[in-house]
Amino acid sequence: MNLPEILGEARTLVTPAMTDALSRLSPEIRRVVDYHMGWRDADGRPVQRRGSKSVRPALAFLSAQAGGGEFRGAVSGALAVEFLNNWAFLIDDVMDRDRFRRQRETAWVVFGEGQAICAGTALLTLAQQVLLESDSPMRFKALDLAMDTSARMLAGQTLDMTFERRFDYTVAESMTMTQSKTASLMRCATSIGAVLVGADDRTVDTLADFGQCVGVAFQARDDMLGIWGTPDQTGGRPRGFDIKARKGTLPIAVALNDETRGDDLRKLFGQEGELADWQVERASELITATGGREWTESLARRMVAQATAAISELDLPDDVRDHFHQLAAMGLPDDVSR
Amino acid sequence: MNLPEILGEARTLVTPAMTDALSRLSPEIRRVVDYHMGWRDADGRPVQRRGSKSVRPALAFLSAQAGGGEFRGAVSGALAVEFLNNWAFLIDDVMDRDRFRRQRETAWVVFGEGQAICAGTALLTLAQQVLLESDSPMRFKALDLAMDTSARMLAGQTLDMTFERRFDYTVAESMTMTQSKTASLMRCATSIGAVLVGADDRTVDTLADFGQCVGVAFQARDDMLGIWGTPDQTGGRPRGFDIKARKGTLPIAVALNDETRGDDLRKLFGQEGELADWQVERASELITATGGREWTESLARRMVAQATAAISELDLPDDVRDHFHQLAAMGLPDDVSR
Repeated sequence: MNLPEILGEARTLVTPAMTDALSRLSPEIRRVVDYHMGWRDADGRPVQRRGSKSVRPALAFLSAQAGGGEFRGAVSGALAVEFLNNWAFLIDDVMDRDRFRRQRETAWVVFGEGQAICAGTALLTLAQQVLLESDSPMRFKALDLAMDTSARMLAGQTLDMTFERRFDYTVAESMTMTQSKTASLMRCATSIGAVLVGADDRTVDTLADFGQCVGVAFQARDDMLGIWGTPDQTGGRPRGFDIKARKGTLPIAVALNDETRGDDLRKLFGQEGELADWQVERASELITATGGREWTESLARRMVAQATAAISELDLPDDVRDHFHQLAAMGLPDDVSR
Repeated sequence: MNLPEILGEARTLVTPAMTDALSRLSPEIRRVVDYHMGWRDADGRPVQRRGSKSVRPALAFLSAQAGGGEFRGAVSGALAVEFLNNWAFLIDDVMDRDRFRRQRETAWVVFGEGQAICAGTALLTLAQQVLLESDSPMRFKALDLAMDTSARMLAGQTLDMTFERRFDYTVAESMTMTQSKTASLMRCATSIGAVLVGADDRTVDTLADFGQCVGVAFQARDDMLGIWGTPDQTGGRPRGFDIKARKGTLPIAVALNDETRGDDLRKLFGQEGELADWQVERASELITATGGREWTESLARRMVAQATAAISELDLPDDVRDHFHQLAAMGLPDDVSR
């Protein structure tokens, strides 16, 4: 199988299990989830599905394969990471006041904040329920991993929010946030399949390290898109939306800590109200001038290389290793416009 | 032991375990939780603790005793219900825009909505983690119960929010909301101890029924306080706060469904903006006139009687049965002012 085929296979395995798991939600919660997933419109009418890329479920399946099992041994794990990912989307959109995702209005804009938060939390609970009810003898270890992951994600999200009110955080703090808020979920995806099929600790740990590195690379790439991405690349979001939101992303943290230009950026961020387009442009130039862009791009490349090196330590069939390499390469920021 | 002694013993057992469990939260989340619990002020300085009444932990301990075990066999269960209860408080306060709880500003007012939601969700996760790590052989069954409880609470909260925008719900819908939003947690508290000490199914089910009835009674009493309670009884909240918030509580649902006076109340609720004091007073009179107050009071009494009857079916030592009876009696609305 090539990579698109693997992503397709992941969707084929996950979709019916997901529909089945979601059927236990109350009608009021289901309505919000179905809208968020892109399956129904705001009035509950079915719409053409714009599926997610299914990168995380695919990683959970490959993880099972790397652990000596089969794809179907990791269905509960793939579901769990997909639910955790969508929990994070639903909650983050409320907290970041993001009004668009995947070219549509976000759930909180359509249904209200409370409904979006409850729907998201219901997915968090569902992620844990599908693991507890899995038939793997290792389901409790997988559940422990998922719970630890959600706790890390919450810690990261909370730290992220503190950045919005102070512009004195260090690059190390921004990295801690990145590690816990987003990389921990990728780490969970790349190791939970192996856990479920009963792989040994060394394999699980190596896969976890792989996921942690890939997660940082993906986030570094996203951080670049949040400043230099075109609406085409970012689901219709305005250019420089992370600057507008004064997020504590890695390139911004690097720039704020620059000895000569950090204060200029801090002054821009410290202003009341929304930043004008020319100010966003100015901030983006400042970040490039401090080396924030270069630093982040180089971090992404290093992380992909480190992930690739980690996975090479496992004795895997060539095609399985290739798939991990290809998925890791999706974290490379080659396509971010200048 | 008498009831105050049992509540005191519950606190003694729960407090150190709680401190231990909370120590794994990140400093940013911990700050919000410590404030919410009444242990620290907004700047992180320790304050004299205004402890909770510990009714739910006490019920978890009594549940273990009724299941043939000892109090200490249910520590993880008592912790879990206390965490779930505080998760619900933190989230509800955001969604209901409640600015005061236990005579202090609520966490979202002090730290912002996002921080309060993340701190609450961290407690939800912690509730499940302490159960997974318990040393009871029945911990997975207890975890299943806790997850099912949180799913029900979310369904109830979501249903509750839909009531805020429409005033055509039935008494049955309001009862469904009450059952899932609040009674399910009491049901969890009264059965989780027995589950953890390995009691038989009949005992667990009877204790669950007891808790469900007591939960409805407690909520019915709270619904009365939300209309007729004095600030002294409601932690400093203004009289008629449930009317101001146009909540879908039981007495309000009864009144809205009254053939002759329902439309008058609907007209009041349908107004833009805040209700004036005289309008709150008028709504409260309307609710009494429709029999909404009487109906709710009688429901609470019936539920306490039903709970008492349920617990009598179990072969319990007299003092244990007495403690259940006394805790159930706390749901009687005798003290709600006229």
